[in-house]
Formats: sequence, C-alpha cells, structure tokens
Amino acid sequence: MKKSLVALAALAVAGVASAQSSVTLFGIVDAGVSYYQNKADGGAKTSSWQQTNSGYNSSRLGFRGTEDLGGGLAAGFWLEAALGNDTGAAGGGGTQLFNRRSTVSLSGPFGEFRIGRDYTATFWNDTTFDPFGTNGVGTNVINAAHSAVLTGAGFASDSTTVRSNNMVGYFLPANLGGFYGQAQYAFHENTKTDGSTFDSKANEYAGARFGYANGPLDVAVAYGETTVVSTAAQEVKVKTANLGASYDLGVVKLFGELSRVTNDFSPNSVVFGSDSVDLDGALIGVTAPIGAGLIRASYSTVKAKVDNAADPKANKFALGYVHNLSKRTALYATVARISNKDGANISVSGNLSTSATKNSTGYDFGIRHAF
Amino acid sequence: MKKSLVALAALAVAGVASAQSSVTLFGIVDAGVSYYQNKADGGAKTSSWQQTNSGYNSSRLGFRGTEDLGGGLAAGFWLEAALGNDTGAAGGGGTQLFNRRSTVSLSGPFGEFRIGRDYTATFWNDTTFDPFGTNGVGTNVINAAHSAVLTGAGFASDSTTVRSNNMVGYFLPANLGGFYGQAQYAFHENTKTDGSTFDSKANEYAGARFGYANGPLDVAVAYGETTVVSTAAQEVKVKTANLGASYDLGVVKLFGELSRVTNDFSPNSVVFGSDSVDLDGALIGVTAPIGAGLIRASYSTVKAKVDNAADPKANKFALGYVHNLSKRTALYATVARISNKDGANISVSGNLSTSATKNSTGYDFGIRHAF
Amino acid sequence: MKKSLVALAALAVAGVASAQSSVTLFGIVDAGVSYYQNKADGGAKTSSWQQTNSGYNSSRLGFRGTEDLGGGLAAGFWLEAALGNDTGAAGGGGTQLFNRRSTVSLSGPFGEFRIGRDYTATFWNDTTFDPFGTNGVGTNVINAAHSAVLTGAGFASDSTTVRSNNMVGYFLPANLGGFYGQAQYAFHENTKTDGSTFDSKANEYAGARFGYANGPLDVAVAYGETTVVSTAAQEVKVKTANLGASYDLGVVKLFGELSRVTNDFSPNSVVFGSDSVDLDGALIGVTAPIGAGLIRASYSTVKAKVDNAADPKANKFALGYVHNLSKRTALYATVARISNKDGANISVSGNLSTSATKNSTGYDFGIRHAF
Repeated sequence: MKKSLVALAALAVAGVASAQSSVTLFGIVDAGVSYYQNKADGGAKTSSWQQTNSGYNSSRLGFRGTEDLGGGLAAGFWLEAALGNDTGAAGGGGTQLFNRRSTVSLSGPFGEFRIGRDYTATFWNDTTFDPFGTNGVGTNVINAAHSAVLTGAGFASDSTTVRSNNMVGYFLPANLGGFYGQAQYAFHENTKTDGSTFDSKANEYAGARFGYANGPLDVAVAYGETTVVSTAAQEVKVKTANLGASYDLGVVKLFGELSRVTNDFSPNSVVFGSDSVDLDGALIGVTAPIGAGLIRASYSTVKAKVDNAADPKANKFALGYVHNLSKRTALYATVARISNKDGANISVSGNLSTSATKNSTGYDFGIRHAF
Repeated sequence: MKKSLVALAALAVAGVASAQSSVTLFGIVDAGVSYYQNKADGGAKTSSWQQTNSGYNSSRLGFRGTEDLGGGLAAGFWLEAALGNDTGAAGGGGTQLFNRRSTVSLSGPFGEFRIGRDYTATFWNDTTFDPFGTNGVGTNVINAAHSAVLTGAGFASDSTTVRSNNMVGYFLPANLGGFYGQAQYAFHENTKTDGSTFDSKANEYAGARFGYANGPLDVAVAYGETTVVSTAAQEVKVKTANLGASYDLGVVKLFGELSRVTNDFSPNSVVFGSDSVDLDGALIGVTAPIGAGLIRASYSTVKAKVDNAADPKANKFALGYVHNLSKRTALYATVARISNKDGANISVSGNLSTSATKNSTGYDFGIRHAF
Repeated sequence: MKKSLVALAALAVAGVASAQSSVTLFGIVDAGVSYYQNKADGGAKTSSWQQTNSGYNSSRLGFRGTEDLGGGLAAGFWLEAALGNDTGAAGGGGTQLFNRRSTVSLSGPFGEFRIGRDYTATFWNDTTFDPFGTNGVGTNVINAAHSAVLTGAGFASDSTTVRSNNMVGYFLPANLGGFYGQAQYAFHENTKTDGSTFDSKANEYAGARFGYANGPLDVAVAYGETTVVSTAAQEVKVKTANLGASYDLGVVKLFGELSRVTNDFSPNSVVFGSDSVDLDGALIGVTAPIGAGLIRASYSTVKAKVDNAADPKANKFALGYVHNLSKRTALYATVARISNKDGANISVSGNLSTSATKNSTGYDFGIRHAF
C-alpha cells in the first residue's frame, strides 16, 4: 500500500520552501460481506453472515512524514491506526489509537534508527510470503502457533506476535545490492529491585531479520524471542524462527514459508510435562496475474509437537481472486477451508466458534479502497 | 455542512496527476453556553449552566475522498467522528472513533453501493425536516419515541435510531429528475446454529427512503425495522414509518413531519399487556431568512398510545436565531420549552433530569465554525 | 512548537479562493530511552529502563485552522491530542482524544473569546518559565504541589492543574505594547436544586494571567481557584498564585518562578488540623545556546507548610543538552535528581515508585521531531 498514498502539499516550516519535506495522510478502507461456517466433530453446524472489514488489506488511517536534514540525514514519523470500519472503530482498544505503528526515525547512509511501537522482525515473513498477506479468511494458519487456538490450554498469549510497544530498532540502508535487514529490541519496562530474587521481564522482545531481494527473488530469515510470562513461579518464552521466500516467474509468483514457534517453559509445563513445545508451520502459495486481476492460492499447515498427547494439527486451503479497478481500488473474493485434527480448534473467523471445530469454511466478498 | 469543507490539494497516486481524486479533511466545532431548567410535578426546580457542544450543528472531524475510476465509476470513503469539544472527546465510546459514519462506496450511473456504519434511512426525515436539525435544545421531540424517556419502563433502547453498524446500502443516482432514494440492510452478525430452536437477530436493521426534491419542494417517506431485543423468551421489534416535507416560499420555508414508531412485542409486553404500542409524532416548523440571519421555529409533539394506562405525551416549542458571520461561521441562540403530560418525562437536556419532569426549558448561545 | 508546523494548502470554501483561511495538521513525535532510579530511606534501590515519550516536548497530533471573517474578525478552531507514541496511545483516556486542547475562537481587535477545553491561566507560568518546559525528567517540582505525592494523604487530586474542560476564556489582543493577559472560567455543570441546602461546585475553575513581554524580558503573574472537592460534608478549594519571569542576556537566558498553592478546607482538614495549607515552590533556571545546541539547567524546590508535622519538602536539580538537527528535529539528553525530606515522596517518573523515596535520579536520551 505504500505507493498508493495521497501526499499533501506541504508548505515550508518557518517560511523556507523545502521540496523534500512532506506530511502524508494515508489509509485504506476495506469492507465486505463474509460468510463463516464451522462444523463440530459431533456434527453441530454454526454459521454467520457478517459485514466485515480488512478482507483483502488491513483498513487503516495514518499520518506520516519525512524531513530532509541535509547531508543524507532525514527524520521521519509514522502514526497509523487500525480501522474497524464496519462499526467505525479505530485503534486497538483503550487509548491505543495508533496501534499499527507509532514511530519516529532518524535515517541516513548508515541506515535507519526507529523508536516506538512497530512490527516485529519475525512477523514480516509470515505476512510478506503469504499470498493473502495475513488478511481475511485466506490468512495462513502459521500464525495460529502464537495463540491457544491450536492446542488449547497450556499456551500463553503472545502479545508481540505482530507488533511490540517500546521498541528501538535498526534497519540496514537500501543500497546493499539487494540485502536488507533489521534488528529490534523492546524494553520490558518492569521495575528491577536491587537484591530481589525475581524481577519480571514480561513483554521483553528481541528479534532480527535478514533478507535478499533482487530481480524475481525475495528470501528472508528471521528470529525473535519474547518473554510472555514472567513470574517468580513460572517463565514462558516464545521463540520464533522462520524462513520465507517468493520467486516471480512472471506468469505466476511462487511463495513459501517455514516456521517454528517454540514455547520454552521454566520450570516444565504442567500441561505438556516438558520444558519446550515446538509448533511447526509451513506454507506454499501462488499468485497469477490475469489482466487487471490476480488469482491467489495457498496451502498452509501448523502442528504442535506435544510429548504427552496426540499432536494437534490443522491445514488450510485458500483460493481467491482480486480484480483491480485502479491501483487504489479493488474488488475481491476469497474462499478458504480449515481442517482441524487431534484437538486443534482453528476457525476462519474469531467471531464464530464452536467448542470443538472440525472444519471451518469462510467466504469474503469485498472492496478495498486506498487513499 | 457538506459544502462547507476544506479540500486539501492532493498529489497524484503513483505520480500520475488526477484532478478528480482528492482527500478532504473536514469538520465542525460548535461550542456554546447553555442553561437548562426542569420543573417537577410537585414543584421542585432543578437547573444547570453548562458549556456545551453541538447546539446548532453536530461537532465532528472527518476524512473523506473520492477516486475517479473512469467510465463514470467512482470509489470513495468517508470516516467521520463526533466531537465533544467542551471536553475534547471524540467518537462514541470504546474504540468507536468514527461513530458518525465509516463507509466505503462504489458509485456510477447505476447509483451508489455503500458499506459500513451509516445513518439509517428512517432518521433522515427526522433531521432533514426539523428546522433545528435535531441539534441543541430545539431538537424535535419525535425522536423521543425511540427511547424510554417518553413512557418509562417497557421500551427497549433502539441503538439504530440514528445509525447502524454493519450496513450495506444502495442509493439511487442523482439524475432521476428530482427523485431520490436509498435502501439499507444491517447484518445482525449473530451465530446461527443448525437445529437450534432460537437464533438471535438482535441489531438487524432494514429500511428504505424515497423522496422527491425539485424547486421549492422536498418530500420523502421512509420505513425501517430493527430487532432491538431477541432472546428465546422475548422479541421486540421497532418499526418506524415517517413522512416529511419542506417547501421554500422564499420569504419563509415551511417544514412538516409525521412519524409512527411501533414497538412490536412477541409475546405480549407484560408492561403494556399488548403485542404492539404506537408512538405517534408530528412536527410543523418554519425558517425565515433575514439578511445574514435566519429565524427558526418549530412545534413538535409525541404521544405513546398505551392500552392499559393514560397515554404519555409531550409537546415542545422551539424558537431560535442564527446569525451567519460567513458561510462557515455563525452565532446562534435558541430557546425551547417542553411540556410533559401523563407520565412522559422528556427533558431539553439529558444531563439534567428530575424523577418526574413537568416542564423543561433550555437556552443555547453559541458559535458554529465549520472547516 | 507553534512555528514548527506544516500548513496544508487549503482550497476555498464554496469555490471562492481565500488566502487567509487554512487548516493545519501539526504534531510532535518525541521518543527516547530513559533510565530511572529511586532509593528509599531504608536503602532499597529500584530502577527501570524504559522507552519513553515526550522527554523534550510533549508528543501530540493536532488540527487547527482560522477563517478571516473580514473587518479584522477571525474564527478559528484547535483540536490537539496527546500522543503516547511509545505504545501508540492518543488522548487522555476514555473518549477524550483531544485532551490537550479542544477550542473554538472568535477574535478581533477586541482580543479573543475562546470556548472549550484549554490550558488554565495558572499553568502557563509553571511551564513557560521552566527551562525544561515541564517535560521529561527535568520537569520542575513546583507542579508536585498539585498532587498528593508531596505530602501523602490529605490532599485532593486537582484535575485542573494543567487544563480544564468546559471553559470560556478571554485573551487580550496582541497590540498592547507587550502587555498580554487572559481570564478564564470553567463551568462546574452540576445541577442546582432550588431549596437544596447543598449544591456541588466540583470542577469549577476561575483564573487569570497578566504579563509583559518586550525585548529580552518576559514576566507574568497568574491566579486561579478550583473547587476540587464539593460535598455536603467537605469542600476543598485549591488556590494557585504564581509569578514567573525570564530575561534573555543573549549568552544566557535566565528563568525564575515563585508559586504558592493553597489548599483551603471547609471544615478544617482532619489530616492537617487546619483550614488551610500552603505549598510553596520556587525555581531558578538558565539556558545557554552553543551553536546548534542549547544547555539547560534548573533548580526547583517545593515545600508544604503543615501545622501539625514536619514540613515535607523536595528539591530538584536538572541539567540537559539539546542538539538541533533542524528547527523541527532535535536530539536531547537530560539528567535530574530529586532529594526528598520529611515525608515528601516525589519521583522523576510516575512509572517507578517505592513506598518511601529519598532520592530519585533520571536520565532521558531522545529525539524530538515536529511537523
């Protein structure tokens, strides 16, 4: 979406014209109608028609700008709110309006230093190498490894799966012959007491991503750690490693991702009876441009490798079509089906769930308008 | 207010100039001082001086834009937040920032399809044909038919009186010789369970409006249904039908509205002992331009036709003056008085109430600035 | 910051070009890393590293505009939200998005009338004559006189220390040979009941400020009263009087402030055994420009003069450096240390506290970017 923005003509600060400085208002309003259907193991079927948002791209409203400081240096800011435009909602709850991104940057030939709330390094592979960009019913199931829906009780919620507050990050400059990369650290901000036997590190995140994009190829590897539970009695860390790639053959573009999300328990998890559980995910996908349209398809799987029980697993097949009315406006339709096994309980929609879902099917029909 | 907007100069998307595309930041900040006085049946008098907002027009902040897609097609978005500028508040509570409107549209020679949170068809007659536009102490009492203030217990709150979430709407094109119209449906989004004896339809809305505006005449009829309570034990639907008209004689402009709001109970209401209660409203109004000023006056009534008790009823007389300093900025003063009978309990201000109000008098003095 | 804004090119209302009318989007994103360390009387030491906001200037996002009404008259609006950009937060809690300022104005040769949420007259001296502008760890301790942190229990929270809702204000015009001034009243908006023995006046504020700025000198005096508790059993008023001045010698700029915050209790405070407690504050400060940089230093004290116990007191020394990369972007570093005595318990950071803090030390390192 970064190119589909409206730049506002900006007058100079203090009366001095500066063509390099600008403030941009940008956004996406994506709305549609969806149908979800879940089928439980026993046979009960639940369904819902809904007027939904963000079926193709995440709805958002943002303000961003850059200032040329001379000597190759630039300062910039980025404030971006999620929109729940089916109800008029904005932001992520409470006062967290700019929940998608809220950063200030200083960049130059050395790269970019960025401070604030931002995407985590590890999430980029999940979304960049998914033909459905982790939006709508087509979203890959790999991300489910970060929540309890795959394996039920025993997993802690990971609030930094996609983004983290209180980050300082460094990004490589753009002129490295296709190599790109970033490293980020999020402060836990908890109080340390001298002489204390325990100090919480909850919400600390550290991660990095390194990739290479040149011609048809884009490939990247990422690793991140976050402390999701940190009490004197128990510490749980979520360690995410993933590798993604895409290759554009012209007629079709191929996508793939491998992901391992490890839950480290100290002491051992009482649910799983072990100090570590791996959740492995994989995706293959393809997109094919046809005139003003784009066909999208993906197959993704996720499996929790539990020692003391059957391994919960799920797979998903998604198929979609996007018809571009312009660069900013598109119509889209997506259908996806999830199959759960051995206790996995993933649904195409968080708004619709049964106590034990065997299959979940979803349809999105919508319009995406960017500005 | 739609004409009183500031359009921001928009650069082209992807480097291509497009005079037809724009993003507009717009808003209204309306602030004043109000005095409210209620008198109870027994004689106790309560009053309050307040610094208020939206006495003449609803304060708001919005972003909207359109994109010319060629061939007569256009895409557009509209995000509009209410402002409580006396305290700096925005939005409608929780994360619902763009509570006034949050839509994306696709329009063309066929008309306009619109998706998201929007005004209901039935509300337009209540506000368009009220000389006070349902703002400030002058607001007509017809709208009270949608709340419990008229009749006390027994009525369910109707959250879709003015707007509804999750709507899909269709609007007729503009070139029909003065005829205009719209039809809207809001999904209830509740889960349907196969084989269940009951599935909730709470928050479902369906409505339409059809009108004719040509020369001095504007007349419209509207009908809407919303399911306000939907449990296995009880279902309550609110059905609204209204007819409004205005006629501009030049020296004065005349306004009128007739409204019936029916509460359908299934099974019978235990409060009213019937399966249906009608609440009938009527308004006559007049505005008269005098130089840069506008005199406004209205008389409105509302009555609940209850079978097993006296019919609660209220009437209101409102008189006001608006002095335009420019097209964007105006000073205004309004006085209004409500008389309640037989248990009706409507006040000029929701912020000031006594347990049983006989008369309620209010004054607004303020400034409206649009941008 | 008022000069560091980006003005958006504004098209005319209703097709008529008007160079005097504009809408401006403006803001500040200030982010950094801070370290706080508190030491209790007994010896326990607590500390925290945090990614913080507003260490140099308060982060904000705003919309404002003016309209030339002709004849020297102008209308204007100002909507400004605080940003907690380390987490993406905006506004002050609940729906109060534009918590920094939310006003509409009518101005002319007579001065300016302003309505809405705004700064109180008395706060301006606290912030204007503080070299650290009441931001970051360098913030003067005088403001602590408005909260319970100085004296513990017995003081009511004063919600109008910095700003108040529901204000009407008058500001002198700019052409008075350097003299400036303002007077403000905030409605309590509580209900008055005829014949009642008690009506609450909680949240009422009245204040004024008068000053003189000419050449190197700026001096101002302010007084304000606010009713913070108003029940039938007890009324507490906070009365604030302060005098501030700055003098620019070129090589250095000197700052000074004297402040008295009086808590009036009716009947007598059970905690203090008196009808009144004074909290006296003072500040001396200096800034010195060095090329593109600015050295800042201040010493401030605050003391509660309690009749029945030792007088809690605190002092603070703050030292900082700001390096301007441009008029809009600056890097900064600040260090500050607070010493508490006789029960005072002020910390450099509200996020870090021990039950009894003797010394509190803080460091800010950050970047401020204005747009």
